Amino acid sequence: MALERAGASSEAAASTAAALVAADAQGLAGHGVSRVPQYAAHLRNGRIVGSAVPRVVAGRGGAALVDAGSGLAYPACALAVGEAIRRAREFGVAFVGVTNSHHSGASAVHLAPIARAKLVGLMLTNSPAAMPAWGGKTPLFGTNPIAAVFPREGTKPLVVDLSLSEVARGKIMVAAKEGRPIPSGWALDRDGRPTTDPARALEGSMLPAGGVKGAMLALVVELLCCALTGAAFGFEADSFFVDTGNRPRIGQAFFAIDPGALAGGPVYRDRLETLVSAMLADEGVRLPGERRHRLGDAAVRDGVEIADALALEIRNLAGE
Amino acid sequence: MALERAGASSEAAASTAAALVAADAQGLAGHGVSRVPQYAAHLRNGRIVGSAVPRVVAGRGGAALVDAGSGLAYPACALAVGEAIRRAREFGVAFVGVTNSHHSGASAVHLAPIARAKLVGLMLTNSPAAMPAWGGKTPLFGTNPIAAVFPREGTKPLVVDLSLSEVARGKIMVAAKEGRPIPSGWALDRDGRPTTDPARALEGSMLPAGGVKGAMLALVVELLCCALTGAAFGFEADSFFVDTGNRPRIGQAFFAIDPGALAGGPVYRDRLETLVSAMLADEGVRLPGERRHRLGDAAVRDGVEIADALALEIRNLAGE
Repeated sequence: MALERAGASSEAAASTAAALVAADAQGLAGHGVSRVPQYAAHLRNGRIVGSAVPRVVAGRGGAALVDAGSGLAYPACALAVGEAIRRAREFGVAFVGVTNSHHSGASAVHLAPIARAKLVGLMLTNSPAAMPAWGGKTPLFGTNPIAAVFPREGTKPLVVDLSLSEVARGKIMVAAKEGRPIPSGWALDRDGRPTTDPARALEGSMLPAGGVKGAMLALVVELLCCALTGAAFGFEADSFFVDTGNRPRIGQAFFAIDPGALAGGPVYRDRLETLVSAMLADEGVRLPGERRHRLGDAAVRDGVEIADALALEIRNLAGE
Repeated sequence: MALERAGASSEAAASTAAALVAADAQGLAGHGVSRVPQYAAHLRNGRIVGSAVPRVVAGRGGAALVDAGSGLAYPACALAVGEAIRRAREFGVAFVGVTNSHHSGASAVHLAPIARAKLVGLMLTNSPAAMPAWGGKTPLFGTNPIAAVFPREGTKPLVVDLSLSEVARGKIMVAAKEGRPIPSGWALDRDGRPTTDPARALEGSMLPAGGVKGAMLALVVELLCCALTGAAFGFEADSFFVDTGNRPRIGQAFFAIDPGALAGGPVYRDRLETLVSAMLADEGVRLPGERRHRLGDAAVRDGVEIADALALEIRNLAGE
């Protein structure tokens, strides 16, 4: 209701709300309903077009392009995922890009239908500039998360979901709020010097995970999400964390691959379980996605808790 | 001639030699003709099947599987790249896996024909186990390089090529030969403790780039290259650096994407050049692949130098 009241179509608001609640259920509060006030402000300020209807605007075989029309990212990503599933089943592999998009939250939530369709899925997205190119000072690339989902037989999929910055920007924002210094190696100030001051870090840039390697992978994500789709690069998009600014017009990209078009479903499942067994035989290793699945199951049983202040803010935005 | 004399078919030897020389020309000596003695030993010891003929054994639309038949990786990868180009042109996107394969050297050399076809290309490969899963002690994953190529109009493509270990294993081997300690953060000993002793590091495991993030990406590469193709995981393949052992049977995976199936070639080229300009406007940033292209051009003019001892060893292997 809060998003509809700010101008979103009921379809877009419902799609967005479902994804945000799913993220909260999996313990990913930073991509949960805590984003509602931000999205509502962007809707009111024209940074998101509430009436936008995502459309497939190009396609050939396994490839397609979805135009989000500067609307909320969630309905556009849902359309892209549906296209990716259909095209991967028919053509073995699919690549579906999304252009003119916005913040897409927890990537693994978008990928869940691909795993349910027994396909391997990858999702990439760029985001407003937070990291310089390697050797530079000016933020050019987003933190550009990479996510992957690998379905398993009779149990929940393996889920990998990581950003390419050394830490999530949220951690620096928390330190700034609490007035605590941050470890060196997380961020640079606006002059490109290492800093432990979170306020200076937020004016400056994030450091990539693994140094040059994270920076190079962020470049690859930026190009796959934007050059192929026509979306805006991170340095062209204003921050999600301010109410005013441009339409970010960033991009997302989804891959889906059908094991049946390669070595086949039985070989895929057998190989995957062989690796899972080897991982679990090594004491201290946990399967990626395990914690999310456990929290998600608990949330189905017990519901999701959100802070009273946030609940009140969302109710106010909804006019309740 | 050295590879043929060790049992490789003339086609496989020629394909391999061309790729090794291309790597040397680009300054990547670790993946150049320095590998000839290793490959020759593997051919003689049955770790590589010299008579193998790579074949397309499955396919649907944009997806296909190439069986390298435990032969040299280069002819199998060349077949896979040809399939990927053909399928991406027809179906917009291609994913071609290679199974029962061997060491594939410099990924960017394999990707060059994809860029010449004006397609975006990605290559992934796993390799004999060098890194533990996150939290573990036992090497399970290879250093699992990720490479990408983005064609440009009228000039050489952007080329990203990186392994997911903090440093290349070769750097630790050099330190061991020279008796120098290695920085902490590069490797663990066989009990999973950090070490600066290169000999202990070689018995132990490499650390992933960016900590948990590199480890998770290595898992993704392992699954894309092996679960989809039926290839052997890193922990199932004996080291390339010993003459005896099993047939490694590792996997490779290629993606090719046609910009024409998405936002179109002109949009792709315009977007790419916009990002290139922004990168070059930030003092200190170099375009990825620039050094390789410069060295490659110089090599066409001046030839490639290799050490006398290596040249002699290869001539001896060739029976000259």
